Amino acid sequence: MSYLYFSLQQHHPLWLGLAENASAREGKLSYRRFPDGETYLQVLSDCQDQDVIVLHTLNQPDEDILGLLFLATALKQQGAKRVGLVAPYLSYMRQDKAFKEGELITSRVFANLVSQHFDWLLTVDPHLHRYKALEEIYPIPCVTLHAAPLLHRWIKNTIQKPLLIGPDSESAQWVEQAAQDYGMPYLVLEKQRQGDREVLISLPDVAQWREHTPVLVDDIVSSGRTLLATIALLQDAGFSRCSCVAIHGIFAENSYEEIRAAGADMFTTNTIPHRSNKIDLNHLMINAIDDFMEL
Amino acid sequence: MSYLYFSLQQHHPLWLGLAENASAREGKLSYRRFPDGETYLQVLSDCQDQDVIVLHTLNQPDEDILGLLFLATALKQQGAKRVGLVAPYLSYMRQDKAFKEGELITSRVFANLVSQHFDWLLTVDPHLHRYKALEEIYPIPCVTLHAAPLLHRWIKNTIQKPLLIGPDSESAQWVEQAAQDYGMPYLVLEKQRQGDREVLISLPDVAQWREHTPVLVDDIVSSGRTLLATIALLQDAGFSRCSCVAIHGIFAENSYEEIRAAGADMFTTNTIPHRSNKIDLNHLMINAIDDFMEL
Repeated sequence: MSYLYFSLQQHHPLWLGLAENASAREGKLSYRRFPDGETYLQVLSDCQDQDVIVLHTLNQPDEDILGLLFLATALKQQGAKRVGLVAPYLSYMRQDKAFKEGELITSRVFANLVSQHFDWLLTVDPHLHRYKALEEIYPIPCVTLHAAPLLHRWIKNTIQKPLLIGPDSESAQWVEQAAQDYGMPYLVLEKQRQGDREVLISLPDVAQWREHTPVLVDDIVSSGRTLLATIALLQDAGFSRCSCVAIHGIFAENSYEEIRAAGADMFTTNTIPHRSNKIDLNHLMINAIDDFMEL
Repeated sequence: MSYLYFSLQQHHPLWLGLAENASAREGKLSYRRFPDGETYLQVLSDCQDQDVIVLHTLNQPDEDILGLLFLATALKQQGAKRVGLVAPYLSYMRQDKAFKEGELITSRVFANLVSQHFDWLLTVDPHLHRYKALEEIYPIPCVTLHAAPLLHRWIKNTIQKPLLIGPDSESAQWVEQAAQDYGMPYLVLEKQRQGDREVLISLPDVAQWREHTPVLVDDIVSSGRTLLATIALLQDAGFSRCSCVAIHGIFAENSYEEIRAAGADMFTTNTIPHRSNKIDLNHLMINAIDDFMEL
């Protein structure tokens, strides 16, 4: 089934991928900011009874949400039959519980806001911890893609004698499967988080892996504190060089530069555009969009 | 009636004003940004069955909207009986019509979003052009305050021999009333807008007002192009010094510095915190809040 695709992020690598997809047609917009910062939006393509997707990766959710809700509203007003959100990175998945009285579970509020404006959602590896599936908080149809197989194959093809390292128990899922599929050795470390930016990690005896290249694997790099602490431990243990591989590279607060300055290589998928992007998920996402459109 | 007031903008002058109001009690929040830019929010005060207001001036609507909707949601979840938005400056009032096919009337979408989260709204001089009243787009109770009487009194008390100048027909309302109330002379100029930042203004013969101080009066200063063009015309016509008075000083793109560099004085009310704030609206707003609470 043919569909129209729109985006306020035409610099995203998936924008170029969609242009090469025969079943997708580029939707035209006029979009700008007025001098006072307010958003202007005009839909230029005919959307009447069309199936429509909006590409928008959500690594800057607070800044971007209003423009995104505006776009969904405008497309519906222009007659779109169905408007899907393709968010390669989905924000606001981490606050999944009120740890203290009065705390807002922002994941649920964000999910409600998105679900009121979009008819379906596609994303790659949302940060699922206490929630087992997006459907627990998103009442709209959700397509959840997994980058792990592509990540693991990339590691196997690119890095000599990898020793996979999951920096904490939440990242165990990323390394155990790879170890199983490709027979790569792995370790899962224990992490204690002591604040937004402070982490304490302990490393077991790694003497037997001296000939290997440590490959730290995680889903999201934000402040980078977890990776930086782990890199330091590995260097203390005698590993001169290590690699980090993540699905979503947010790289808050200069963390990419810090990781590189610490002497590690850093590789990510292209869910969030960044110069560390090495693992291309365009085919994975486009095939999934096409499959959903056939439903 | 006693009420609780909350804000993510505790630097706003009205925050201090509310602290001195006997019927208002300060609501406590824990609010911060995670390293990845996501908002964290915890309501620390007991809101059960309380009447609550949120102070938030909206000169940065795209950046601020999500935090604001989060706060409204959190207060409701904590049992607040009624949550009002006190927005000294209200954004997204200018796009009040689709001038071209496919244009989104953002004022309506923004009004819907706010009205879904707040029970009532108080603001100062929203930019009403094609809409005659906020109620045309906001389905919640609205309190619309007018700064003009305080503005006019301030001009009368502060500026010697003022010649009031409205730079365009939309600003006529600001100068005609002052002229009537205080017997000050006035002119309304004609403006043609040629883009977001380009304006063309024509000045009539002003020879008879040479002994006066031109006082440019407008509701909003954004890019400042209208004021700067008018200042230049007045200087060409032989006025060495002029003053500008506005209700809402957004001052996009360094426009305050440009107005000052052009040799004009610039004065605003304190709806948006800025060093040009000279006309205090705290009493006007607090009295109106108190009045609304009595209803």
